[in-house]
Amino acid sequence: MTNTTQQRWPDAEIRAALTQLRQKQPLVHCMTNLVVTGFTANVLLAIGAAPAMIIAREESADFARIASSLLINLGTITTDSADAMLGAVKAAMDAGTPWVLDPVAVGVLSFRQQICSHLLEYRPGIIRGNASEILALAGVASGRGVDSTAASSQAIEAAIQLAGQSGAVVAVSGATDYITDGQQIIEVCGGREIMTRVTGTGCALGAVMAAFVGAGIAPLRAATAASAIFAQAAERAAEQAKGPGSFSVAFIDQLSLLA
Amino acid sequence: MTNTTQQRWPDAEIRAALTQLRQKQPLVHCMTNLVVTGFTANVLLAIGAAPAMIIAREESADFARIASSLLINLGTITTDSADAMLGAVKAAMDAGTPWVLDPVAVGVLSFRQQICSHLLEYRPGIIRGNASEILALAGVASGRGVDSTAASSQAIEAAIQLAGQSGAVVAVSGATDYITDGQQIIEVCGGREIMTRVTGTGCALGAVMAAFVGAGIAPLRAATAASAIFAQAAERAAEQAKGPGSFSVAFIDQLSLLA
Amino acid sequence: MTNTTQQRWPDAEIRAALTQLRQKQPLVHCMTNLVVTGFTANVLLAIGAAPAMIIAREESADFARIASSLLINLGTITTDSADAMLGAVKAAMDAGTPWVLDPVAVGVLSFRQQICSHLLEYRPGIIRGNASEILALAGVASGRGVDSTAASSQAIEAAIQLAGQSGAVVAVSGATDYITDGQQIIEVCGGREIMTRVTGTGCALGAVMAAFVGAGIAPLRAATAASAIFAQAAERAAEQAKGPGSFSVAFIDQLSLLA
Repeated sequence: MTNTTQQRWPDAEIRAALTQLRQKQPLVHCMTNLVVTGFTANVLLAIGAAPAMIIAREESADFARIASSLLINLGTITTDSADAMLGAVKAAMDAGTPWVLDPVAVGVLSFRQQICSHLLEYRPGIIRGNASEILALAGVASGRGVDSTAASSQAIEAAIQLAGQSGAVVAVSGATDYITDGQQIIEVCGGREIMTRVTGTGCALGAVMAAFVGAGIAPLRAATAASAIFAQAAERAAEQAKGPGSFSVAFIDQLSLLA
Repeated sequence: MTNTTQQRWPDAEIRAALTQLRQKQPLVHCMTNLVVTGFTANVLLAIGAAPAMIIAREESADFARIASSLLINLGTITTDSADAMLGAVKAAMDAGTPWVLDPVAVGVLSFRQQICSHLLEYRPGIIRGNASEILALAGVASGRGVDSTAASSQAIEAAIQLAGQSGAVVAVSGATDYITDGQQIIEVCGGREIMTRVTGTGCALGAVMAAFVGAGIAPLRAATAASAIFAQAAERAAEQAKGPGSFSVAFIDQLSLLA
Repeated sequence: MTNTTQQRWPDAEIRAALTQLRQKQPLVHCMTNLVVTGFTANVLLAIGAAPAMIIAREESADFARIASSLLINLGTITTDSADAMLGAVKAAMDAGTPWVLDPVAVGVLSFRQQICSHLLEYRPGIIRGNASEILALAGVASGRGVDSTAASSQAIEAAIQLAGQSGAVVAVSGATDYITDGQQIIEVCGGREIMTRVTGTGCALGAVMAAFVGAGIAPLRAATAASAIFAQAAERAAEQAKGPGSFSVAFIDQLSLLA
């Protein structure tokens, strides 16, 4: 695995990051897909961030300038929304607003692959995806739908490569999450399989990474803290859940209760 | 009631269909309305299907080719989304991808009636609607909003007629569901009135019909299995619910627990 | 505070308004933002109204004519949706359909300020916003994101002024809600801080105001009744909630159980 080191992250650092987020209450500009808007906003509110979904091309650039951070998620991309997103990331780069790219289903469809290429020119701080998406972005392979057809560990080399190419921290989500800046690899275990039965958990994770960078935490630590608190909240929620419906409710509760 | 036969469906056949769905994990391409996206995805995940919402006209046709099945729901139709849907159903017919039409509020507004006429040329496998919608599509009557102003039993003749005209299986949802291929009529009882107090239950039912046809089950059986598992999950969820909020959560749980 | 009187509203009048709403089952045409569609529909169903989200410019005017009332919420406004909304409010004014304006994040971005000015020409019956939004609409100040940066009491004078300018009843939401027609000021206390941790509670409140006016209740009473039942349902839901996830579910249950 080349000259990288693999490690976990101390619990005290995760707590410190969460405390910082709650103090700063970052304003997270979300340009995300139509399936997960409400869940994403509720997750952000639960951890103490202030979500705002501003999607018009007439407003997206101006708002990206004043927001603490920006989330770009390609799930239900169209020509119009891609245009508005491009305006937002240009303004974000210009204004120094950190931003997170979630390249949903890239590799399956060429239209969004082209959009991704354009977006990557404006230097996201973090790229978050499942193994299939990270493999596709690194030019290695392609997936089926929006779910990964590969295990997260199979995408570690691709993630390191993509981090080097893009300058972004790359986070591969899966049974174990791997986060790398091209040098270090941080591993976050835990989480629960039931998370894959609730729509938007991955998308909301990208939003929480944006919240942490918006609170002034560096991308590698931000992505790690987000993955770690998701894993913890999921473990606690799973204890109370009868199925994915009650899990989803308990997950929001547990995110708000983390201390 | 002409030369049709009315019957119920054995429980063992419903179980077998559900087992088949869970084994195949069909990739269901959803082009649905903006109110129910999240709920629909969570229902599909709960029963074991893989939802994907791809809505751009640049992507919808390509994705309809590779998906196991396609859902078209007209709830929040616009000129752009109608265009993308038309591309998807053409590709679906061409590629042999079975698809389901949910003609929300057709009969109330002429714009969506025209869109429906175009879509019907591409031969949906199943048409699912409430009584008002089926009566309107068969050219018999019109409704008020998105809720039916007629009982499902009043639309049986219209459903048989529409099945004959369109070549599709027609499912009329209501206190009792009626499903017909123009010859047989299958009756599914059960369900609970509280379902009408949760937005998207009807829309999600159409999506689950798409999941069953995507798992290789013939349209008449697919529509019946979907209605039957909805009724069962609703009965169990209603026992635990204090109101429509907790019903909705328990309904997702119970769908995932059906065995 | 000039020549206005400040008062509370008797509980018996709130009950009477709710009974009238449930009898009339008003058809509420919602043109709202993409984050809160599902939650808004579920809130309306819980109180006994019939929501319908019709958003295309080809349909919005025709539907506004036949609906009992109309809700316009600017949260995720675009050029296309603004165009469709403008068609709807023109038709609403023409047909005598009462409508409610929720000017989300006005004052932060000039694009939506212009849209607001156009919409206000068509005489909303009620304008509902947080303090920052009401201050901005009255030309006094501006906010940060979608959340208020001012207390509701700081916007009372601005609300009175805006009511005078627009002819609408103005409702300022916050820890205490203030509702004014420019003469009277009604104060609604209660509610719970946890409501600010659930996305869409403010937006759904605007929808419920639309439901009450759609049931034939005058704007001042409609806005007050909506605020009062929200406060009551929130108090009851908060007793059962572990966090914002379970609060949201219990809130919908309690709205349906109010008697």
